Amino acid sequence: MRRKSFEDAECPIARGIDQVGDWWSLLILRDAFDGLTRFDQFERSLGIAPGMLTRRLRGLVEDGLLTRVAYSQRPPRHDYRLTERGKALRPVLIALYAWQNRLTPEADRTMVLVDRDGVTVDPVLVDRRTGKSLGELGARFVPGPAAGDGMRRRLDRHSEGTS
Amino acid sequence: MRRKSFEDAECPIARGIDQVGDWWSLLILRDAFDGLTRFDQFERSLGIAPGMLTRRLRGLVEDGLLTRVAYSQRPPRHDYRLTERGKALRPVLIALYAWQNRLTPEADRTMVLVDRDGVTVDPVLVDRRTGKSLGELGARFVPGPAAGDGMRRRLDRHSEGTS
Repeated sequence: MRRKSFEDAECPIARGIDQVGDWWSLLILRDAFDGLTRFDQFERSLGIAPGMLTRRLRGLVEDGLLTRVAYSQRPPRHDYRLTERGKALRPVLIALYAWQNRLTPEADRTMVLVDRDGVTVDPVLVDRRTGKSLGELGARFVPGPAAGDGMRRRLDRHSEGTS
Repeated sequence: MRRKSFEDAECPIARGIDQVGDWWSLLILRDAFDGLTRFDQFERSLGIAPGMLTRRLRGLVEDGLLTRVAYSQRPPRHDYRLTERGKALRPVLIALYAWQNRLTPEADRTMVLVDRDGVTVDPVLVDRRTGKSLGELGARFVPGPAAGDGMRRRLDRHSEGTS
């Protein structure tokens, strides 16, 4: 994955995409949330070439999203488990699910998010403190304490935004 | 982007990733949310090669996330605007922002999501109907009406999950 310019290194969305913004890495994480832990499980689930899977798993471990844990000494065997940082990514995958599912007629849905009683859950982003939706709050991005000139220009442009 | 196996075509998360799961497409969408609409604006913002940008914009239009609108006849000029489907993706980018920002000490943050009064918004996923967090609800995926065998196996595996 090509790393981006200095301005983008400042953007938390760009940094996030840089860590997980490729097909395979996101699908490996999806499988990890589904309880898969072993190389051969990921390989079978994804139909991915072993060399490709090795590189992606290594990248996810380097980025601190998965951790590699020995579960057998002889023969040496490892599995891959989500770190706290990796687990914290679940809302991104759930938001992606919600986006797709809202576009899919109910009868055509292959996966549904439910609560303990099997009642469908419709995930929506709200502000933790007030419980209000982001639309209701008119939520928008402003430069933070560490924003450089590039980020300030980006977000100024936003406030003059055409959409 | 390599398209995946039949089993994955069934998974709404995989379908979502397939549409937006590459660096450039997601960054173009981020810029579109920031109010950018014109080819040269995206080009300057992203430092992306024109041919690459052309291909990505075309893909986003084909997937129905952006729409290409003529704003001048002579010379012929177009801009790119988010469709409703594209706008509906905003929670995914906000979830990505929230994930990164929670890992960043307050003083080091370059972007902050605020409400109309400038008060920091902490975005969290809840169930629209009950307002409860997904953790509180024990939210999990189950096969939907259109789930095939592959999806059923995946989600059964989940319920036996090791994590």
